[in-house]
Amino acid sequence: LLPARSAAALREDIDVLVVLPSNNSYLFSIARVEPAIEYALRRLRSDPGPYAGFAFNVRYENSGCGNEALFSVVDRSCGAKPDLILGPVCEYAAAQVVRLASHWDIPVLSAGALASGFSDKHREYSHLTRVAPSYLKMAETFSEMFKRFGWKDALLVFDDDKEERNCYFALEGVHGVLLAHDKIDVLDLHSRAYRVDAEEVIKHFYDSEVIIMCAGADIIRDIMLAAHRRRLTNGSKIFFNIELFNSSSYGNGSWWRGDKYDAEAKLAYAALNTVTLLRSVKAEFENFSIEVKKSTQKAGIYNHDDGENVNMFVEGFHDALLLYALALHEVMKNGFSKKDGAQITHRMWNRTFEGIAGQVSIDSNGDRNGDFSVMAMTDQEAGTFEVVMNYFGVNRTIQMLPGFNRERFTLKDRHRNTFPEHPNQSSG
Amino acid sequence: LLPARSAAALREDIDVLVVLPSNNSYLFSIARVEPAIEYALRRLRSDPGPYAGFAFNVRYENSGCGNEALFSVVDRSCGAKPDLILGPVCEYAAAQVVRLASHWDIPVLSAGALASGFSDKHREYSHLTRVAPSYLKMAETFSEMFKRFGWKDALLVFDDDKEERNCYFALEGVHGVLLAHDKIDVLDLHSRAYRVDAEEVIKHFYDSEVIIMCAGADIIRDIMLAAHRRRLTNGSKIFFNIELFNSSSYGNGSWWRGDKYDAEAKLAYAALNTVTLLRSVKAEFENFSIEVKKSTQKAGIYNHDDGENVNMFVEGFHDALLLYALALHEVMKNGFSKKDGAQITHRMWNRTFEGIAGQVSIDSNGDRNGDFSVMAMTDQEAGTFEVVMNYFGVNRTIQMLPGFNRERFTLKDRHRNTFPEHPNQSSG
Repeated sequence: LLPARSAAALREDIDVLVVLPSNNSYLFSIARVEPAIEYALRRLRSDPGPYAGFAFNVRYENSGCGNEALFSVVDRSCGAKPDLILGPVCEYAAAQVVRLASHWDIPVLSAGALASGFSDKHREYSHLTRVAPSYLKMAETFSEMFKRFGWKDALLVFDDDKEERNCYFALEGVHGVLLAHDKIDVLDLHSRAYRVDAEEVIKHFYDSEVIIMCAGADIIRDIMLAAHRRRLTNGSKIFFNIELFNSSSYGNGSWWRGDKYDAEAKLAYAALNTVTLLRSVKAEFENFSIEVKKSTQKAGIYNHDDGENVNMFVEGFHDALLLYALALHEVMKNGFSKKDGAQITHRMWNRTFEGIAGQVSIDSNGDRNGDFSVMAMTDQEAGTFEVVMNYFGVNRTIQMLPGFNRERFTLKDRHRNTFPEHPNQSSG
Repeated sequence: LLPARSAAALREDIDVLVVLPSNNSYLFSIARVEPAIEYALRRLRSDPGPYAGFAFNVRYENSGCGNEALFSVVDRSCGAKPDLILGPVCEYAAAQVVRLASHWDIPVLSAGALASGFSDKHREYSHLTRVAPSYLKMAETFSEMFKRFGWKDALLVFDDDKEERNCYFALEGVHGVLLAHDKIDVLDLHSRAYRVDAEEVIKHFYDSEVIIMCAGADIIRDIMLAAHRRRLTNGSKIFFNIELFNSSSYGNGSWWRGDKYDAEAKLAYAALNTVTLLRSVKAEFENFSIEVKKSTQKAGIYNHDDGENVNMFVEGFHDALLLYALALHEVMKNGFSKKDGAQITHRMWNRTFEGIAGQVSIDSNGDRNGDFSVMAMTDQEAGTFEVVMNYFGVNRTIQMLPGFNRERFTLKDRHRNTFPEHPNQSSG
């Protein structure tokens, strides 16, 4: 820790503009994220060391999920430009704001802007640092599994809402990563415009070994039921479901509905694996979770879907402030100021720091490395799921857990295909 | 004309921000368009009537063809917002500027922003008026021909440069208009990334009756030569080439190169029709053309490709100022001000006025109706082209000219298909 005098020398007022939706139907609405930012500010203020001298002046502006984001930033920045922008999350909102902020030399930190396009930091997105793992990072989990288990092709099934487009962008990432080595097909459900006919959907499954799906929980269940009825869940295919944002709004992996199909669905889901963010168990995170939940409940927001855990956006914006303070402190020690946005941005890249839920590692391109888990049904009687593998982005390794069962990730019909040179072998 | 006193009462300073590229490789660069705007300003100033009181203060800012456009507008508008924005032309530049201008209640007039997406004026593009015919208007020429000549399907061949994307957007318009009734296939050449193999391209021609192409002149020639060698130019297909912007940079319909293929190309081009903007012959336009060309030559810009005529962008931005002055005068008479952007915008819609090259008709959606010509080879000996049909957008009519030859627009094999119930008829 620095002596008090040195800290005082770094006293600085920092204008922060938080650009997030005011509509609480978004997992990253202002009211949901504000408690996390306030938590981080309290922590920075109480720090006896380098950050004590920073006085953050935070304004919250409604970004909506589209053009309003840019309008908010422009209208609020004409007089005095902010020193830091947090958000937006939605891709179309973020694209416009990040471009302008980069042009103005203002750092942007977001727990969103997860689409692959934002990875190109050489031009319009130069000042963007992503504090939550992007879709490309999630996709690495798949590419490592494809390598390890020898799978060769995949069908990507996604439900594109044509607005936020989370599933579209998520599978765009998977597509980008797998395409180099594997044969990839895609199927867009677009359930807002067309009724999803599960029987029709599974007709596309026959030509692929691995089915990777991103859609709402009910669509996934219909598809798995149809696949089960056509005996596609007997091991000839590997099924994946992607749970986005460690919130169960997307990709809820539960078969249970309390209807007459539950028994069948439980059988079907024995073949379904879910890829999700690795959950943290750090003690400090528990405290953070409790405080954030208290604040959002006080604000009258309660979403029973994500009652169990604080989602990755809330966590990410907390860590964003820590990371910015860390970098700002360093550039100021080196004679630069809060107005040197490019300097501050590059100080945030290629470094690891302690976030609220564990270590946060930002790669040399300014994107957070991601840790993901693969969950599978480990008790077929009870129909319960457990984490069977973890993927650690920082060193690209897969860890097998006790519940892991290799057979489950091995294609049954593959043996046949592997030895086509034995003409006498039965193909039955 | 109004009496002098009334005109004086309407005295008003108007800040105009022109957002166009400074790079003269664009047909609508600042240096190319500025003489047309100056010509219009002189005309308005010398008007003894309603416009005499308007003092236009015009600033020119570099839009580039992408994000710079927005940055220019934001950086230049923070202090005082302009009353009128002219440009941008490039689609990606225009989208960003028009959104922000609409949010700020500032009218935008452009001779570009031709893509179909800008037709939706209900939301983000509410303040956009298009003074040159959009790609959808050009596409009407095709839909009228399809109706009249009974064609049923088309293949759209376009060269997408993935930057300006003029051919992509042009054929997107054709696609949108034809799709309702006809079977449409598309073929993207993307010549920047892949060598165009004309032999491969024409393999896609066999299943379609009408081939509509948008690409550089040399690519069109290669394709027509290949089609001719495979006897596809014998009347079983109708070929179209789209000339964009009444500038020969796109879709130059000439077969001549001075190489050994000229004779063959002349034969091939006997089957090629070119759709282009209808050329004006108004006397005043000649004077305008000469003045504009003098100015651009004085500025050191000379492009022998468009030496013959002033392109539609230059013409459009001239007329844009007239239209704006007309509308502003009216809203001021009605007690509104230059700051009532939505009012001014709606006054410009659904009206006809006299532009520099002829009547300009703006439809009720704020988009200019377009008049187009179809050119065809009328002297096969000399290999020369003439206008054989005109399409008038305002009443959606086709006019046949003396050079028109119905056989040329009739599918040869169609007779066979029309009478499949005659089993004895020879199919030879």
